[in-house]
Amino acid sequence: MNVHILSPRFEEYLSQKKALIERSLERLLPPVDEEPRIIHESMRYSVFAGGKRLRPVLAVTAFEIVGGQGDQILPLASGLELIHTYSLIHDDLPCMDNDDFRRGRPTNHKVYGEAIAVLAGDALFSLAFECFLGKGMTEPIPWAILGQISHHIASAVGSRGLVGGQVMDIEKYSKDKQLPTLEQTSHLKTGHLIQTALECGAVLAAADQGALAALRDYGQAIGIAFQITDDILNVTGDARKLGKGVNTDAARDIVTFPSLLGVEGARMQARKWISRAKESLSRFGDSAWFLHELADYVIQRQS
Amino acid sequence: MNVHILSPRFEEYLSQKKALIERSLERLLPPVDEEPRIIHESMRYSVFAGGKRLRPVLAVTAFEIVGGQGDQILPLASGLELIHTYSLIHDDLPCMDNDDFRRGRPTNHKVYGEAIAVLAGDALFSLAFECFLGKGMTEPIPWAILGQISHHIASAVGSRGLVGGQVMDIEKYSKDKQLPTLEQTSHLKTGHLIQTALECGAVLAAADQGALAALRDYGQAIGIAFQITDDILNVTGDARKLGKGVNTDAARDIVTFPSLLGVEGARMQARKWISRAKESLSRFGDSAWFLHELADYVIQRQS
Repeated sequence: MNVHILSPRFEEYLSQKKALIERSLERLLPPVDEEPRIIHESMRYSVFAGGKRLRPVLAVTAFEIVGGQGDQILPLASGLELIHTYSLIHDDLPCMDNDDFRRGRPTNHKVYGEAIAVLAGDALFSLAFECFLGKGMTEPIPWAILGQISHHIASAVGSRGLVGGQVMDIEKYSKDKQLPTLEQTSHLKTGHLIQTALECGAVLAAADQGALAALRDYGQAIGIAFQITDDILNVTGDARKLGKGVNTDAARDIVTFPSLLGVEGARMQARKWISRAKESLSRFGDSAWFLHELADYVIQRQS
Repeated sequence: MNVHILSPRFEEYLSQKKALIERSLERLLPPVDEEPRIIHESMRYSVFAGGKRLRPVLAVTAFEIVGGQGDQILPLASGLELIHTYSLIHDDLPCMDNDDFRRGRPTNHKVYGEAIAVLAGDALFSLAFECFLGKGMTEPIPWAILGQISHHIASAVGSRGLVGGQVMDIEKYSKDKQLPTLEQTSHLKTGHLIQTALECGAVLAAADQGALAALRDYGQAIGIAFQITDDILNVTGDARKLGKGVNTDAARDIVTFPSLLGVEGARMQARKWISRAKESLSRFGDSAWFLHELADYVIQRQS
């Protein structure tokens, strides 16, 4: 694999967008001293745990690529991060993946107990929908756009989306998995919300159907590549850099991309998806430079 | 207390509305044989466990009292029941109330395991928002109305509403509770969603501000009376009729209305709220007959 060094403008773009999103999240979450304090503390603990902010950065980028301007994308982008955080909190619970560490810190339930962790996830979920439906928006956005975006996200995270993927992951489906099933699970569990972030950002800027379809294809492809890379890092990664345990998939006897294809085979598969992702960006020309570099980053990341 | 016998027209009205809601829920939930099957089976198990359908019946009733006609209220009403069901599933989890029975049947996690119970709750939550935002609606409703209703519900179920009430219930707040705190907890945990159901039904039928305020007052009052009655039944009720354990609050050393006021004191408090509820209906005249009788039912019910 040709390892590209991420360009300085990539790093700068990413840290600029991340800073905007951090500030937006700070404004949208209830203050830590609001009663009942423990739930607001717990929500903030996981939201401000140093995530990559991949989904909100993608939403902002898609919004701008198709011509969107200004800050009205931020509450929507932040809401997507709240959804992602809720799903991680529930996913880490003892009854699910039973993970003690996430991003180098104890998981939510290790700090606040399981009951508060379940409720913090639930509260982030509803706060996300407040954001999708106007909370924190500085200029009015037509309800038709907010409504359609919110409906689209609701269906992307339910039993036919994110939750469905998690069920497939923990259920017997893990045992007789072939490559297409594994790709579908990855899509539901990871790719669907990434794809939805791109779509919703573009819809907010009134993108045409062609641009939407291109971003959808890109999102699906990097989503699967992202999950393949997660699986590879679980085998080859450095627990300190990752901030979570390694070899946990093998210990749980879960079918993953490397367990099915070997580490090299999984890397090839990830590169295939990244090529597809880049091809789908052709219509945007140079304006999609960040998405091109992000595609490389998705499979080169060490954490 | 003057025990009113519920009138035949009350029973008939209730069973008619319930039948409409059952059919609507049946249409809105994914079929049981859709993959991943276990999650759809689990969602349906708890939704079709024989609930009273109080929230959707209130939404339909409020809609009709202010002049609404037709079936477009049903997906919204059903979504409210999905939210209620999600909150019960999470509330019953071992890390929360640890209840083994609900409505005479084993709780969701006793049948499907904790992981699927958490995910079934999550999936019902997102399906509810699909319903609020147009799923299953047979005629188009302006996005401005759907959007505002959905935003209102999202804020009613988060850390400043339903989840906040549950946190207050399980946290140290339970220890130093006085009557106003107990009433606020009851409002957040139970009354807020009941109130929201009435409000949203009325908003869908374009109710004026006066009608909305009246229904809001009614909802708040019956919500608190409902919770007081739940607490009383936990002391005096028949486990078989209730379909769940009794004296569980005392065993957990929770401050409740009867533990604070005695059973008779709690009954007086409930009657006070029911009188208030009825007073707030004056502007509707005879058209509110069902809400009047429902107020009596709320404190007379045995389950």
